[in-house]
Amino acid sequence: MFESAEIGHVIDKETYEAEVPALREALLEAQFELRQQQRFPVIILINGIEGAGKGETVKLLNEWMDPRSIEVRTFDQQTDEELARPPAWRYWRMFPAKGRMGIFFGNWYSQMLQGRVHGLFKDPRLDQSINGAERLEKMLCDEGALIFKFWFHLSKKQMKARLKALADDPLHSWRISPLDWQQSATYDKFVKYGERVLRRTSRDYAPWHVIAGVDARYRSLTVGKILLEGLQSALKRPRIHPHKVSAAPLFPSVDQVNLLDSLDLTQQLDKDDYEEQLITEQARFSGLMRDKRMRRHALIAVFEGNDAAGKGGAIRRVAAALDPRQYDIVPIAAPTEEERAQPYLWRFWRHIPARGKFTVFDRSWYGRVLVERIEGFCSKADWMRAYGEINDFEEQIADAGVIVVKFWLAIDKQTQMERFQERKEIPFKRFKITEDDWRNRDKWDDYRAAVGDMVDRTSTEISPWTLVEANDKRWARVKVLRTINQALEEAFEKSDKREKKLQKRKR
Amino acid sequence: MFESAEIGHVIDKETYEAEVPALREALLEAQFELRQQQRFPVIILINGIEGAGKGETVKLLNEWMDPRSIEVRTFDQQTDEELARPPAWRYWRMFPAKGRMGIFFGNWYSQMLQGRVHGLFKDPRLDQSINGAERLEKMLCDEGALIFKFWFHLSKKQMKARLKALADDPLHSWRISPLDWQQSATYDKFVKYGERVLRRTSRDYAPWHVIAGVDARYRSLTVGKILLEGLQSALKRPRIHPHKVSAAPLFPSVDQVNLLDSLDLTQQLDKDDYEEQLITEQARFSGLMRDKRMRRHALIAVFEGNDAAGKGGAIRRVAAALDPRQYDIVPIAAPTEEERAQPYLWRFWRHIPARGKFTVFDRSWYGRVLVERIEGFCSKADWMRAYGEINDFEEQIADAGVIVVKFWLAIDKQTQMERFQERKEIPFKRFKITEDDWRNRDKWDDYRAAVGDMVDRTSTEISPWTLVEANDKRWARVKVLRTINQALEEAFEKSDKREKKLQKRKR
Repeated sequence: MFESAEIGHVIDKETYEAEVPALREALLEAQFELRQQQRFPVIILINGIEGAGKGETVKLLNEWMDPRSIEVRTFDQQTDEELARPPAWRYWRMFPAKGRMGIFFGNWYSQMLQGRVHGLFKDPRLDQSINGAERLEKMLCDEGALIFKFWFHLSKKQMKARLKALADDPLHSWRISPLDWQQSATYDKFVKYGERVLRRTSRDYAPWHVIAGVDARYRSLTVGKILLEGLQSALKRPRIHPHKVSAAPLFPSVDQVNLLDSLDLTQQLDKDDYEEQLITEQARFSGLMRDKRMRRHALIAVFEGNDAAGKGGAIRRVAAALDPRQYDIVPIAAPTEEERAQPYLWRFWRHIPARGKFTVFDRSWYGRVLVERIEGFCSKADWMRAYGEINDFEEQIADAGVIVVKFWLAIDKQTQMERFQERKEIPFKRFKITEDDWRNRDKWDDYRAAVGDMVDRTSTEISPWTLVEANDKRWARVKVLRTINQALEEAFEKSDKREKKLQKRKR
Repeated sequence: MFESAEIGHVIDKETYEAEVPALREALLEAQFELRQQQRFPVIILINGIEGAGKGETVKLLNEWMDPRSIEVRTFDQQTDEELARPPAWRYWRMFPAKGRMGIFFGNWYSQMLQGRVHGLFKDPRLDQSINGAERLEKMLCDEGALIFKFWFHLSKKQMKARLKALADDPLHSWRISPLDWQQSATYDKFVKYGERVLRRTSRDYAPWHVIAGVDARYRSLTVGKILLEGLQSALKRPRIHPHKVSAAPLFPSVDQVNLLDSLDLTQQLDKDDYEEQLITEQARFSGLMRDKRMRRHALIAVFEGNDAAGKGGAIRRVAAALDPRQYDIVPIAAPTEEERAQPYLWRFWRHIPARGKFTVFDRSWYGRVLVERIEGFCSKADWMRAYGEINDFEEQIADAGVIVVKFWLAIDKQTQMERFQERKEIPFKRFKITEDDWRNRDKWDDYRAAVGDMVDRTSTEISPWTLVEANDKRWARVKVLRTINQALEEAFEKSDKREKKLQKRKR
């Protein structure tokens, strides 16, 4: 994999100086066009051997292009805000907006390579990370991002010579960190695992480019030309407008029976039972949130449902059990300008709770496979791939200890009509009913189909959907709280078991 | 100041239950209207004696109103990302957007009171903090924010009784932290300094409301009614549209001589001198940025100037001295939707560099007194008060060790014309010239006047303006770098002196 990079490519000064001006001009043009189109972001990943010219090349790119639309990001020590959240959060918060370029030093690849080289974990975990990186990049590319992955290479001999030369030069010796020397000792491992990573993550949509690092002119020209070509061809890609596809279910069930038909919407609680059970569940919830095991977890509750199904009321009963300092409620409406300039999931990643905290999403990332699918706000390809992306997303946050509980509050068409009428009549509820609600009602069957597909494709063991019979608000509220409590208790029990196993192993 | 709050207000259950439904409904209505108008944010500060019902009241407000547009924020331990930036940064990042409500527990007042009560500093520092709070709130209100400040009060006797009751109740004893007991010991001091703070920061635009905390029904009704009245009257305030005021200088100088006339724009450097001096200054800059004293500082460079004055080129020469991982370049264009929903300075606060880092602003907060003033994008009142707000802002960040260097790159009208022509002709520069540039050129004299006022009003000892003669690009670039270097050296020397003093005192 690195053979070609070790044969010693060299570009002479004349050739270099003859080629650079035109290359630079073309890069500036492309960068300008990128900024004008504001159609996609560019993400450049910088990895490889120390001393192979990573820093120098990035510096050069900043000089060749307009540094005002380039963001260079390093990811070394995690801050405590980052440590309190799933590992990918730190990358998500740093993604460049459409029209801009982000150069990521010390990205997900360096993290997995360091971990494997230093024996923090073995091949299976490495392969998991590789798989995660692949899915992340696939999603970014599907969202339009242009990704360049550069591996700067040196042979072992070249690296040692380079480090020595730097160390001997008083002007540059400060640039060698203890880490660099350490890498000299782990070169073989680093290259071995590097190869594994490159092999598995070089994909048509985001291939690796191995750059021979020994000659500065060669590597600069090579990187510049790869960037230019990639940029130019991406800029020429036709703009894809979301097809206004009809919202047919993926594979409508032959007998027309939908998951939602299986709900017994007549279930209800009388007032006394309700009040007793509500208080019990609220007290239980409040206790669980104060449990010290909660410090290792975070909680997310997602509320979706028919219009007027009582999401707001249920959320209020959940919140009422807690001190308002413990939770955040994030209402999801149309994305803002800054959110539209990022991949779809970005606006949810930014609200991921820190450990110990609780976030309620009033509507959520499922908008893509519900309203966006039905209204044609995105292409069929977009919402079709969203199921997988959402599963990946939920798996990532679950792996970091986030407990995700998802509710679909279901009512029947008659109940909805009664509630719409009621809202129109009661003054302080009138703001709860809008034109959109009536329009959505006309699409009742489309939603029914979309909900069926959503649950089939995204109700997973790590993050199951709970369908809530919500014709009776009391029943719904108690069921919501009880479900959250069960999820917390199960998660705590699992933590306990894991803890005990670890304790045993230590003995 | 607290007398009325100690006489023992009580509301009986009947009165309470009779009044709450209507109050709640009206609050919901007002909140809805707030969200619809999206015209201003509501900031609610919660302070006062422990045990006086702060938490309970906030919980109740969340129950009465729609919690989905309320954000409850606590500010206890600073995170390391917050510690690396000026103290106010943590508040700025949490301000609610227009149309939303933010409840701030543990705000700037609690921080200054804790500090004074525990003897971390004396009255002069307290008064500085008070003054800072006043200016912050004045600015927020001028930007449209509606601020409520509640001081929940208990007499010493009431507080002791309350803490004891809580401790004895097994269901509630967890709610008393060691801090609460500590406050019991420091009650007198807390009230004494509390009074000083309230007295000085109760202003017409953001008065304090002292709430008698002993009776839950009394305090709930009181807070609810104050909120309701404040909200309703703010919602009725007429919308102020920015007046398209003519951009006359504040007090045009009688002889028509402007500060910019005092510049000798013929100054220049020949190529050899330029190259030598540029390399020298870049090396000096690179060394200073690696100086270990830089870890206590951050650096901000602001670039303003005539169109085509060479800001981009100067920024490139500054950046070229550094590793791209050390700096961020923030180009300032029209604010995004999220930025428009916040006070004017918010979009600059979000880019304040962490300690050790460097941020270049390509155009800046001075847009308000330049383009916004001239184009009438804000009212005369807005840009008039901006001078003071900007000075406050720069003082705050300077106090936290941020070194601010500000450049106005000045060229004459003839030079600008030549550069515009050149840009039109050279293909890869064509994107640098837009319709706006020609329009701005027609307003040359307005800008001249605005720059004069800007420098007169915001060139301060802690953050002086440097006017850069930029007809000759070489001269300008060297002057920019040299000025930055001098600013860094001065700041380091000051740090050294302070350090030495501290060392002496310790001996």
